[in-house]
This record gives sequence, C-alpha cells and structure tokens, in this order.
Amino acid sequence: MYAAGDVRVQEVPDAAIVEPTDAIVRVTRACICGSDLWPYASMERTDSGQSMGHEAIGVVEDVGSQVTKIKKGDVVVMPFAYSDGTCAFCHEGLPTACVHVGFFGNNGMNGAQAEALRIPLADGTLYPLPVGEDDALMRSLLTLSDVMGTGHHAAVVAKVGPGKRAAVVGDGAVGLCAVIAAKRLGAEQIIIMGRHADRIALAREYGATDVVSERGDEAVERVRELTGGEGVHSVLECVGHGASMETAIGIARPGGAVGRVGVPQHTEIPGSLPAFFGNITVGGGPAPVRAYLDDLLPDVLDGRIDPGRVFDHTVGLDGVPDGYRAMADRESIKVMVKP
Amino acid sequence: MYAAGDVRVQEVPDAAIVEPTDAIVRVTRACICGSDLWPYASMERTDSGQSMGHEAIGVVEDVGSQVTKIKKGDVVVMPFAYSDGTCAFCHEGLPTACVHVGFFGNNGMNGAQAEALRIPLADGTLYPLPVGEDDALMRSLLTLSDVMGTGHHAAVVAKVGPGKRAAVVGDGAVGLCAVIAAKRLGAEQIIIMGRHADRIALAREYGATDVVSERGDEAVERVRELTGGEGVHSVLECVGHGASMETAIGIARPGGAVGRVGVPQHTEIPGSLPAFFGNITVGGGPAPVRAYLDDLLPDVLDGRIDPGRVFDHTVGLDGVPDGYRAMADRESIKVMVKP
Repeated sequence: MYAAGDVRVQEVPDAAIVEPTDAIVRVTRACICGSDLWPYASMERTDSGQSMGHEAIGVVEDVGSQVTKIKKGDVVVMPFAYSDGTCAFCHEGLPTACVHVGFFGNNGMNGAQAEALRIPLADGTLYPLPVGEDDALMRSLLTLSDVMGTGHHAAVVAKVGPGKRAAVVGDGAVGLCAVIAAKRLGAEQIIIMGRHADRIALAREYGATDVVSERGDEAVERVRELTGGEGVHSVLECVGHGASMETAIGIARPGGAVGRVGVPQHTEIPGSLPAFFGNITVGGGPAPVRAYLDDLLPDVLDGRIDPGRVFDHTVGLDGVPDGYRAMADRESIKVMVKP
Repeated sequence: MYAAGDVRVQEVPDAAIVEPTDAIVRVTRACICGSDLWPYASMERTDSGQSMGHEAIGVVEDVGSQVTKIKKGDVVVMPFAYSDGTCAFCHEGLPTACVHVGFFGNNGMNGAQAEALRIPLADGTLYPLPVGEDDALMRSLLTLSDVMGTGHHAAVVAKVGPGKRAAVVGDGAVGLCAVIAAKRLGAEQIIIMGRHADRIALAREYGATDVVSERGDEAVERVRELTGGEGVHSVLECVGHGASMETAIGIARPGGAVGRVGVPQHTEIPGSLPAFFGNITVGGGPAPVRAYLDDLLPDVLDGRIDPGRVFDHTVGLDGVPDGYRAMADRESIKVMVKP
C-alpha cells in the first residue's frame, strides 16, 4: 500500500532467514482485515510503501538454527503479532504486550498478503495445526489468526458469562465473531448493532437474539427497551470510533463492562461521566490471539463454532487491490486471499 | 453552601419522618469530603443553597412505620448514598446503582453537616454498629461512610492482589485510604503520588513503599524507573482530573487496571490509545461503601486498619465554614465535624 486507495501487487525479493530464531512461511491463506481499511482510507503517500496483511495460515518452508519447536512442513497459524513466548507478558497470556512484540504488515514489518514471509521469533509466534494445508476447516482456522480471537477478547474483557445480556457494536467480521464468542461463553441475550442485511442475517445464525439498527441516542434507547430499561452487562465494541464508544458506554448496565477491540480512531474515550456514575469498566486492546488458540482451536476442529463463514469472497494475490475496494464499499464482509 | 466559597451555618426546620421507610439520625460525627471542595471552588450562586455533607455516624432518633431492621437508639454508619437494599443492584453489591439511589448533600437532598437529618430507605441504607456513640474507634468508623470504602473500591477495581505493584494517584484522604486498602489486599509495592509532606508521611506509615512527587511525563518516567520499566499492575486514581487520569494510564503496566474514584472533572477519558495498546482497563465510580462494610468493619474493630488518622482537624458546626477553607488551602487533610 502506497497511499489511501493505492494497493499494488509487486515482485519483491524472496523472504529469507535473517535471525536464527526466524522461520519462513509459505502463505496458503491470508486475508484482508477491517483494520487494513483504516490506512486504505487515510494513509499518506510514501515512496517505500507498506507490505500489508497480518492474518495467515501457511506451511513452514525453512527455520533458523535456534528454532526448536517449529519444524519445516508444519502447517501453522500466524497470529497478527509476533512474540517471544518466554517473557513475563507471554507467560501471563498477553503476548501482544510481549517485550519483543511486533505487528505484521505494520510499521515497515513485512505482511502476509504475499506468497511467503519471514516470521521473527518463530517458536513463540507460530502455532502448529494438526491438519493438512487444504483441510476443509481452513476458513475457520484462518480466523484464529485474528478476527475470532479478537471477538473472543472483546467477550472476555466485557465479562460475558452464563445468563448475562450482551451487545455487539459493529457487524463487521470481528463483530460477527464477537457474537460467536458471546454465545460460546453463555450469554443469554445477544444484541447485534448494525445495519447490513447480510451481516445481520449471519449474526442471527451465529446466535444474536436481537438487532438494533439505530445509531446514537436512538440506539441507546432501543437497547434499553430490549433490556428492561437497564442496559447490557457486557458490551463488545468492535468498531473503534468515538461515536461507537459513546454508544457502547450508553448501553452498558451499571456495573457492566465494555470490551473494545476496534482500533481506536479517537485519542480520548468519550462518556467519562456516564461510565463513572455507572461504575462501568472500559478495557480491551490488541487481542492476545496466540494465547487464545489453546482454547478456541478445539471448538473449531470439533465444529462447535464456524467463524469461517465471515469470508464471503476469495481472491488470488492479483485480486487483492479489488478485495480492499470490495470491503471498503461493504460489498464483502471479509476477503480471503489464496496466493 | 450558597456559592463557591460561601458556606453558612443556619437554623433549619427539624428533620422529620416523611415516608414510612425513613429514619431520623442525630449526627454524632460528620466530616467534610474532598468532593465537597469541587462545589466550594466552582458552585454558581443559588438562593436556596445546598445542604452539605454526605458522611456521618449518628444515633437513630426515630423510625417510620415500615422500618423493621433499624431501631431507635442504634448507632449507625450513614453511607454517602441511600439505597433500598432489595433491588438487583443492591443484591449484586452495587448499592450506588440502586434503582432508588440518592446522594446525601447533593441535588437538593439534605446533608449530614447538621445536628440531624432524614434518612430515606433506612433499612437498606443504614448500617448498625456494635459500639457506643463515643467509642474510641469513632474516627476510623466514620471513614467507612465514604473515604475508606472509596479507597477500597479503587483497589478492588484496580485488581490489587498479593505480589502486585500498585500506585495511588493523589494524597488526599481517599488516596491515603487507598494506600491502606492496597496494603490490606496484599500489594508488594505501593507508590504514593503526591507532594504534601504531612500526607506523604502518613502514607508511608500506612504502607506506601515509594513516593513520586513529580507530575505529568516526569511522574510516568519515575514510576517506570521504580518498576523495572514496566509500570504498575494497579493504579488507584483518587483525584479526578484529566491530567491525573492521563498519568494513571501512563504508569499502568500492560494488562493492568486503573480504578478511578475521584469524581471526574473531565467529560472524556484521556489516553484512549495508550490504554488500548496496553490492554489497560479503566473502571470505577461511586463506591458501594454500604456493601463493603461487612468486609471492612471487622478490620477497623480489631485495629488491623486505622483510617481515622486522616482526620487532622475537628470542628463544631460553627467551625464548618473554616473547615472548608482549611481543606481547600491544604492546611488540613480532612476535617471532622462534631455537632
């Protein structure tokens, strides 16, 4: 990506081992993320461009001399962040705060919308899968690199639990995975807040019990009507706008929690006073998807959850620029890339 | 209080039962709160004035016909909010979100800087004490009506626990009680952030292990130095300014939590991006001090905690206007009122 709206497919030098802890992964599936749409909408032009993509499954083609857990031939999930797997934060289950953390397809780091890429700290970062590279579950497995783990993070931070009322703000791929996560954790009522018919339909199949398509104060009013006037225990904020955060706080029940996973496009969190007087907690951030894999993978393998349905469009590498356009125009929920 | 800086002691009609769920409490101890200093600094002039004070211990003089648990002659703690004790929020331990909640000395409600006052919903609100009205522990018991419970709330929301690092932002009475609470919940390191020598000295006696007197970026830098570069797991925000919230987020360790109990003087929470990228949780609000009494009272009665030392000045009702001045000028940490 060279600027907002300017995505190009180019030949680049082959990925190669640089550090002894690296691996090279041949990408078998990648995708375009809702968060890629922020630079697609606003990135300033640069000469060097940014290699894009932070979600992938692939096959390990080579490993450095100090890589001991990951082997050539492994089919692996590449979480959107790399991490050493050994620091205090990794041990605490927060690899996105690893002391050596970095984010693929960001800040000059190479991206996964490619034939192959270099993976730093391969032992800490990659997660081997017990399946072949063309397994029928590949779509759902791919979501474990970001969107399913991110939706789950929203649900965990928002303290979803059995019998709780939850609302999901945003009907993008993360919002849809957040519905899956809320249902999986036992929410009794799940309100999806969005206005795209196809996405709402999928949200209902995933377990949403109610739909609110209004925005702002009207949305708050509707959610209150649906919850006996109280609001919801758990709000899963999957957009990242100031306005969506304000709505999220507005619909939370006193004592409730907002889990935000939409990358914030605002430097201040609105609603300081209602959040305070309602004792509402606001948390969240980059999801520790690497740490959630142990928990979520069995559910995908056993077919208990089916997040891969968020992919409604598949392209080859040449189709990536049009994939961005399709997602930005809301023609597609989420685009899979099959290099 | 008729306007900023204008506090008067006046004769008013005797408090009387209005609803059958009311009680009348003769105030034996009240106090002036740090939050009373906000209107003292900025209240617009009104003709009717506002009866002030929301913290008290007293003796029940009369009860309405539907009051069954509270009896004439009981020595009681009056928490700063009244609550019915029967709604879902009260049962969940959040009486400050009671469906019938109200706040003493606020919004036209009568206050406790008085000889006596009417207590709505007496059975849900008042907490009987197993002591006489002049017990030697009266100062510490009085803090259970607000500041000790509020400091405890900051610690609970900030997830203080054994082995954790904590920082307390603000060295007022609530901040000092927050130090007690952090120590009581097992924090290994407790950094007090403030700059008043007398308060810092008391904070150290209460268990603070380190002092940071810088502000803003320098304060963040100092806390990082004291915590191996990481920041603290738990931040107890006891001020309520935008700047103090920004510092609170700045000193939190990734994955950490900020418990805020200072009444916010800002409509937006600063630091949305660092909070997000650090997966830092921000919570808190009006403390459910009524619900915390079961937990904290035994520690006061057994002398394990001694929050009453925050009172360094005692006045009669006539001395209340000067008490406000003394607290506003930082001559006094907290003023006790003995009507």
